[in-house]
Amino acid sequence: MNDAVKTVTAAVLVIGDEILSGRTKDKNIGYIAEYLTGVGIDLSEVRIVPDVEGEIIAALNALRSRYDYVFTTGGIGPTHDDITADAVAKAFGVPIDHDPRAVAILKAHYADGQLTQSRLRMARIPQGADLVENPVSGAPGFMIGNVIVMAGVPAIMQRMLDNIVPTLVSGTRMISETVSPGPGIGEGMIATPLGVIAREHPQVSIGSYPSFGPGGFETHLIIRGKDPDAVATAKLAVELMVRHVQEDKQMKNGQI
Amino acid sequence: MNDAVKTVTAAVLVIGDEILSGRTKDKNIGYIAEYLTGVGIDLSEVRIVPDVEGEIIAALNALRSRYDYVFTTGGIGPTHDDITADAVAKAFGVPIDHDPRAVAILKAHYADGQLTQSRLRMARIPQGADLVENPVSGAPGFMIGNVIVMAGVPAIMQRMLDNIVPTLVSGTRMISETVSPGPGIGEGMIATPLGVIAREHPQVSIGSYPSFGPGGFETHLIIRGKDPDAVATAKLAVELMVRHVQEDKQMKNGQI
Repeated sequence: MNDAVKTVTAAVLVIGDEILSGRTKDKNIGYIAEYLTGVGIDLSEVRIVPDVEGEIIAALNALRSRYDYVFTTGGIGPTHDDITADAVAKAFGVPIDHDPRAVAILKAHYADGQLTQSRLRMARIPQGADLVENPVSGAPGFMIGNVIVMAGVPAIMQRMLDNIVPTLVSGTRMISETVSPGPGIGEGMIATPLGVIAREHPQVSIGSYPSFGPGGFETHLIIRGKDPDAVATAKLAVELMVRHVQEDKQMKNGQI
Repeated sequence: MNDAVKTVTAAVLVIGDEILSGRTKDKNIGYIAEYLTGVGIDLSEVRIVPDVEGEIIAALNALRSRYDYVFTTGGIGPTHDDITADAVAKAFGVPIDHDPRAVAILKAHYADGQLTQSRLRMARIPQGADLVENPVSGAPGFMIGNVIVMAGVPAIMQRMLDNIVPTLVSGTRMISETVSPGPGIGEGMIATPLGVIAREHPQVSIGSYPSFGPGGFETHLIIRGKDPDAVATAKLAVELMVRHVQEDKQMKNGQI
């Protein structure tokens, strides 16, 4: 293993009954996953829990003790079912109250008379947290310890991510190479030699991802790792193997 | 609470590095969530873990001890990174081997000479499991104890769900009613009275779901519960409140 490789891990905690009921389809997990991969933070686990304080606290404590960062989405709006900020404060054992910085942001955002008591709830921030700005709708997210608390609305969550991620420690970027054998080469035809290559290249992880479309099954082989030489060497081995399997198939079909 | 209300819970465990890296966007969680809600099974938690045996076993044991059913997706193909069946066998402490019923299915599915050793791996089923048929590509899923193991490819997963869910115990279906105040009524304008209604109707859960589109913010209020009378009563209270807020706004705007 290359000594210069640095690993930074993260988890995502999605909070919301509406995702678990299927009414709202989550669009944040895949976005955050791709975003973190791009900056060298390895997303290692995701959990989705309901709007229940005990569930949020238990999941948050399990994840924040285990990973370098935890990103939460959802539950920071003005209504009674928005309980994330209070749950995070309890998980950290700190008080929560209207934060003067957040109040100032909301006052600047809303027109006179529009900053209702309910909207002011969005300025409740656990003590010791830093704010994460939200240029879309004013109400900020926040970061406390290694936990980043973001909105659930994708357009807002994405801007919060833009604001916070550059301030985080990141690791060595994962390099990912794809070898696509093309239609007609199923997983079952390459699985044995692929397994041998995977064992022979322990510095990389090799995944085989079948998809099923109108043209039948197709497989994409993904070689992932943080050491460029190791990834390149493993990719070459996979390409040679695939070419061999393709030629073997053409020979059997009488095409060679 | 209505004594006739019966609650059956479930968790989903998504297994796959490709979801955590963001390369593949999960399409199964939302589908399963909606499907289970439709038949009266309450999805209560979701986890996504990597293709790492220890992680799969730990998550599976945490979830299967807590919920009535656990549905897993991913990791049951023929390649070296498909380790779900072995991990499930270890979690249950049972042996795993080629299952004669699964071998017969694969023999019938593949043409002569096509059933490679790798493909035969897909017939490895933990002892004591029942098979879940897969009309798309042959290789079956399985159910052991309260755990249902399904493919990750959505088209296959969906047919497995069709085959297994009718055999499960289901609970009272959740009834869901939506009140949409329309554009111009933000969460902050209704949050206080909505919180009062939520407290006054403990038999239902009331959620407020903002979305952000080209027309600005819009909010949908969802009233969910298993007792039809309780849901209807709470919905009426929400509708009256929304009408009041709308009239109040029109009055301020001089429209009334």
